[in-house]
Amino acid sequence: MGQRKSGIRRNVLALSGGVGGAKLACGLARVLPPGALTTVANTGDDFEHFGLHISPDIDTLTYALAGFQNEQTGWGRSDETWSFMTALGELGGETWFKLGDRDLALHLERTRRLNSGQRLSQVTSDIARLLGVSSRILPMTDDRVRTQVVTEDGVLEFQRYFVEAQCLPKVSGFIFDGADQAHPHPDIVAAMKDPDLRAIVLCPSNPFISIGPMLAIAGLRSALASSEAPVIAVSPIIGGHAVKGPTAKMMKELGLQVDAAAVAAHYHGLIDGFVIDTVDASLANRIEVPVDVQPTIMRDQADREKLARAVIDFADRLTSTDKRA
Amino acid sequence: MGQRKSGIRRNVLALSGGVGGAKLACGLARVLPPGALTTVANTGDDFEHFGLHISPDIDTLTYALAGFQNEQTGWGRSDETWSFMTALGELGGETWFKLGDRDLALHLERTRRLNSGQRLSQVTSDIARLLGVSSRILPMTDDRVRTQVVTEDGVLEFQRYFVEAQCLPKVSGFIFDGADQAHPHPDIVAAMKDPDLRAIVLCPSNPFISIGPMLAIAGLRSALASSEAPVIAVSPIIGGHAVKGPTAKMMKELGLQVDAAAVAAHYHGLIDGFVIDTVDASLANRIEVPVDVQPTIMRDQADREKLARAVIDFADRLTSTDKRA
Repeated sequence: MGQRKSGIRRNVLALSGGVGGAKLACGLARVLPPGALTTVANTGDDFEHFGLHISPDIDTLTYALAGFQNEQTGWGRSDETWSFMTALGELGGETWFKLGDRDLALHLERTRRLNSGQRLSQVTSDIARLLGVSSRILPMTDDRVRTQVVTEDGVLEFQRYFVEAQCLPKVSGFIFDGADQAHPHPDIVAAMKDPDLRAIVLCPSNPFISIGPMLAIAGLRSALASSEAPVIAVSPIIGGHAVKGPTAKMMKELGLQVDAAAVAAHYHGLIDGFVIDTVDASLANRIEVPVDVQPTIMRDQADREKLARAVIDFADRLTSTDKRA
Repeated sequence: MGQRKSGIRRNVLALSGGVGGAKLACGLARVLPPGALTTVANTGDDFEHFGLHISPDIDTLTYALAGFQNEQTGWGRSDETWSFMTALGELGGETWFKLGDRDLALHLERTRRLNSGQRLSQVTSDIARLLGVSSRILPMTDDRVRTQVVTEDGVLEFQRYFVEAQCLPKVSGFIFDGADQAHPHPDIVAAMKDPDLRAIVLCPSNPFISIGPMLAIAGLRSALASSEAPVIAVSPIIGGHAVKGPTAKMMKELGLQVDAAAVAAHYHGLIDGFVIDTVDASLANRIEVPVDVQPTIMRDQADREKLARAVIDFADRLTSTDKRA
């Protein structure tokens, strides 16, 4: 591992979308000192449903870090009941977006607070604290950004594509509506400039619809590009497949090769290191940045912590190399 | 019973507020021919909570007529779960107004439909049908009327008085905000003019906050006063006490004698007959309209049907007497 100079650096900033990102964030939260982790959540897939403000990626992260994520579904709470949805179906209501009884309380309370003038970041932070999350969760922005998916069936709002249409329509591009006017949360920019920042981790999330909306915010992208901390991405593609979600399908539809090297190329100019799975070790020579090869499938909390440690160690090695250069 | 001419008349219009009214409506729905009963629901205690339009009296009636009223609480559904409320409490949300998981679905679906431009009467009718209610439920008006309670603690919105303050503040009067501009649902006026109307029943509901808001709508009050059908009220006060709710407490605070005769006097000029409980038989001579003495406590569905039959028979006798006069 060489001579590490990074002992003095403490903080880690993780950028996360859905389930895979939340898993790595859980690992990072456990292996880092208390308070060292801040996770930035994608809000491009936020939407309004029944007049409620729903933030799927913030919630996946919050539930995961609180320790009650639903391991079966990948979304929602493990201790959930479904009376509301059943009754709504009986009344002929809209049931395409599944809302558990407990989950609904979170959406309602968030909406109430937002309507009373609180910022999404404040609401997110309060709810996380109330649910017992000790690390920090920051929405990528307090401004409104809405991911739209350009498909063969026209431009679809994200949740209509993702949930209602089950990602079936062929994708040709993405619109991050509002991103050009959006400002990153100021604490994200401050964290990226922080001399005590040990690493920025792009979690194994969908590069287009999880990390993509963040990078579409100019202020966030430029802060990331100019950060002195090493930026490490973990491939969401393993052996040509996505562990979960439409990443592989999207890459194919966008005309990209469906492998980890193509993900690394997608992050060209932004990352200092790339973590690929052991099954993809042979791709390393096609990747322009330093590569770390690890078992990246996170089946349980031990896997998450192991990968988290590996990612931090990799970042520390890059820092050390950089200092010696 | 004399010679009945009412055989040709078919329809009954019941005016109902909370639990007691809903019980009698259930009895009427069973003893009358299919389609003969229309129940008018008070909407003065409707309110907005979490951005949802909540109609407590419509819902009590709907759940009762659908056969799944909660007999313990007097509100909500018998097959209810409470995950939402528990989770909301954990998030520090407002929990003073209890919303069950299934009940919440009804409020959400109603709100969605109202926000899409449907009228409350249409929404009420659709929901009742979907829940298997075969008789008709009509809100007193599609316009906005909001009961406010004038108390020693100031003017309180109805649910704040009724639920949050638990009816504790001393009452000096009521404001039916919006009633002066409100129009009764046109089908109510039409029903009251209907030559086939057999009876109008003022259910054993609170005269001030259940029946009061209806009578505060000039068009409804005048249609009631000019209807040719007999108007029968059933006393909500039995032996000087209300079976449920603040009726007796309010009467006392308003300086009224707390008995069935005072309720009859409150309906002076509007009713043609008054039903009192057997325990109150001695009050009959203090009541200016014909009186029928019946067991009026409705412990089960058999009680409800028995009282319903008695009320209809009483109305038929009054019609018959009227015709012979």
